[in-house]
Amino acid sequence: MRAVDIIVAKRDGRSLAREEIAFFVEGVTSAALPDYQASALLMAILLRGMTAEETAWLTDAMVHSGARVDLRDIPGVKVDKHSTGGVGDKTSLILAPLAAACGVPVPMMSGRGLGHTGGTLDKLEAIPGFRVNLSLDEMRHALRTVGVAMIGQTDQIAPADKKLYGLRDVTGTVESIPLISASIMSKKIAEGIDALVLDVKTGSGAFMKTEADSRRLAESLVSIGNASGVRTEAIISAMDAPLGRAVGNALEVVECIEVLKGGGPPDLIDVSVELTARMLVLGKVASDRAGAQRQVRSAIASGAGLERFRRVVETQGGDPNVVDDPARLPHVLDRHLLTADRSGIVARVDAELVGRASVALGAGRDRVEDPVDPAVGIIVSAAPGDSVRAGDPLLELHYRGRGRLDAALQLARQAVVVGDERPAPRRLIVGEVH
Amino acid sequence: MRAVDIIVAKRDGRSLAREEIAFFVEGVTSAALPDYQASALLMAILLRGMTAEETAWLTDAMVHSGARVDLRDIPGVKVDKHSTGGVGDKTSLILAPLAAACGVPVPMMSGRGLGHTGGTLDKLEAIPGFRVNLSLDEMRHALRTVGVAMIGQTDQIAPADKKLYGLRDVTGTVESIPLISASIMSKKIAEGIDALVLDVKTGSGAFMKTEADSRRLAESLVSIGNASGVRTEAIISAMDAPLGRAVGNALEVVECIEVLKGGGPPDLIDVSVELTARMLVLGKVASDRAGAQRQVRSAIASGAGLERFRRVVETQGGDPNVVDDPARLPHVLDRHLLTADRSGIVARVDAELVGRASVALGAGRDRVEDPVDPAVGIIVSAAPGDSVRAGDPLLELHYRGRGRLDAALQLARQAVVVGDERPAPRRLIVGEVH
Repeated sequence: MRAVDIIVAKRDGRSLAREEIAFFVEGVTSAALPDYQASALLMAILLRGMTAEETAWLTDAMVHSGARVDLRDIPGVKVDKHSTGGVGDKTSLILAPLAAACGVPVPMMSGRGLGHTGGTLDKLEAIPGFRVNLSLDEMRHALRTVGVAMIGQTDQIAPADKKLYGLRDVTGTVESIPLISASIMSKKIAEGIDALVLDVKTGSGAFMKTEADSRRLAESLVSIGNASGVRTEAIISAMDAPLGRAVGNALEVVECIEVLKGGGPPDLIDVSVELTARMLVLGKVASDRAGAQRQVRSAIASGAGLERFRRVVETQGGDPNVVDDPARLPHVLDRHLLTADRSGIVARVDAELVGRASVALGAGRDRVEDPVDPAVGIIVSAAPGDSVRAGDPLLELHYRGRGRLDAALQLARQAVVVGDERPAPRRLIVGEVH
Repeated sequence: MRAVDIIVAKRDGRSLAREEIAFFVEGVTSAALPDYQASALLMAILLRGMTAEETAWLTDAMVHSGARVDLRDIPGVKVDKHSTGGVGDKTSLILAPLAAACGVPVPMMSGRGLGHTGGTLDKLEAIPGFRVNLSLDEMRHALRTVGVAMIGQTDQIAPADKKLYGLRDVTGTVESIPLISASIMSKKIAEGIDALVLDVKTGSGAFMKTEADSRRLAESLVSIGNASGVRTEAIISAMDAPLGRAVGNALEVVECIEVLKGGGPPDLIDVSVELTARMLVLGKVASDRAGAQRQVRSAIASGAGLERFRRVVETQGGDPNVVDDPARLPHVLDRHLLTADRSGIVARVDAELVGRASVALGAGRDRVEDPVDPAVGIIVSAAPGDSVRAGDPLLELHYRGRGRLDAALQLARQAVVVGDERPAPRRLIVGEVH
């Protein structure tokens, strides 16, 4: 088998055979295939597409490029959740302890923030002492004792994905539904879960800007999961404006604790409850969604979710006192208020611009290897549809150093638009696929 | 400027700016641009195309990646010829001395055979002692004294092309009209010629299989040449069957000498005379094509072309006695005749299969760095339309070693088809572009 023949076949719009896809993935993993051939094939795949069958084979080959975790000795139906990424998208920190409190074991492997979107690992590491790099043994122990483990991807899981993702990032081949699907699902299948709830974001702050593209991605992901024996369903949720009000790592942890205490902004509560309820049904601790939602809300009201969160933090080496005293989290003392320069109605809070402003403050990264500043970020004071008067706060920037503030302000100033018309009511969950 | 943004722009079907194309070519030349980014862009170009303007900019950037030879001190209108490659396509060895004998200086830079097609340099090197690696000073001297220099491309000419070609070869990005055009024309423009005649081959043995594709390529090449100040015209000629009867390096030299002596097969004579006549008109030693053709045929009849060929061989270090005694050329004594197994009419002599059989004998190469055997090859004894009886010779394989013969026979057996119907008369020159 010659790599160039596989490239030519895809270039000419033909479907690849299972062995050809396996040859490609094995070549990438072992580095026997030069990067220049891999990137030519990635571009051909992006432009020519892949059938559902090819995408499933690609996922399978990527799963088999590394180890597949075996969690069968852990009792219960293991359920994870994955989001395609957004701004202020912090639901993992809320739903993992809530689902566990309701009896669903949650082995969660998450990623870091990249570009304008945040990542669960960065948020967790804002908690002093919190370790996301548990060994597999520590992960099992956490699952048995607390019912939750929140960790980073290990090198053993789908190593082909790591190499391919690095190459896609620099060769303009990220935005391909088959490649995105295989990347996400190979990691999820390899982590040994029984079921998966996906939160596919849609809108200006999401990777997929249109509902149609988001639906196509959701369908691709769900079909791969179910074909691989992982029961998978997806919601498609709005990412035109940030979710909740906090953007930035420690600020988002504070907001999660508020939700687990029964407070917090309604949009964040609603998406978190919806996702957790679906985990409960897939995890067979609830028979229908309505009942599951009631269980979840009651786990918030009783404090069981908050208590579970405290144990997760403690088990993974973090300071559990942050739950009672969020001021123990890293924070900065410098704030800058961006205020409305006219009265009117907030027409739009652009998620991507808020995200990019937060990255400019240091809360995120443009390159995988960059560090993040856990303390900085943005509190969004005005949501679409809010009436504001001139001088009212729109965004509160928590910053470290004037240079970063100035860079962030350039973006933040364009993020909130005040107009005269009331915008159409925000639909938070715009679809589902199962 | 970031390479990934250029890749994404082309991927999404946008036209690149002149500076973006220059950035790409400079990056390739200096190796500042990683191969994996170059190959992703090449695939995006192949699938998304390039406008005529982008192709001209690409060519220009490739010209400027190296030196541009200055031949203005050599008197006369310097004219070269380039063929897109075929099987038995040996016209360069005939037309260069003929054009020079008629007063047109011919600074010819040629390539080597690759795949099933032959290359002028390999044919010249079949002549004992012949040196194709003249220095630029030696080339000037040959042009002044003999009016012809037949050399290989130097490293100073369009180095970006050499790197890009190597990458295209292994990444399935060869078959792109903009990329082919820029590759051919950058080298031709850089060699300092005033005018160029192109022979764009079409048919099963050519790179471009259809007349429409060949015409598109011819139009692209001619437009780039003329825009760069090199007066350029093209013929589109048939490459469904081998041109002439000899395929293989020394065998083709023998056939060229036959033509220069007034013999040889009619198809080879006709294409050679047509191309030379066009060089005479472009070189301003003839005012119209009909008159030019008469001049060329008279240079054959008078022996002036043959005499010039002898001087070319002598000037470049070769043994000039091969002209009178072709047996001095490398040859093998083992021949194998492939004969007709039925009586009928030759329907087809497949150029690509004959070419591949010749490569299998050792006359060509699959990889640039492979050596070739100058002595081996194939004499095509039957042309399409010939009546044959069972047992008549179709192909005569000149071979070295049974293993290579067996490999060649597997291909050669399928190359000649004998049927009952007389095929449509062969059109040799199917179009022109100027």
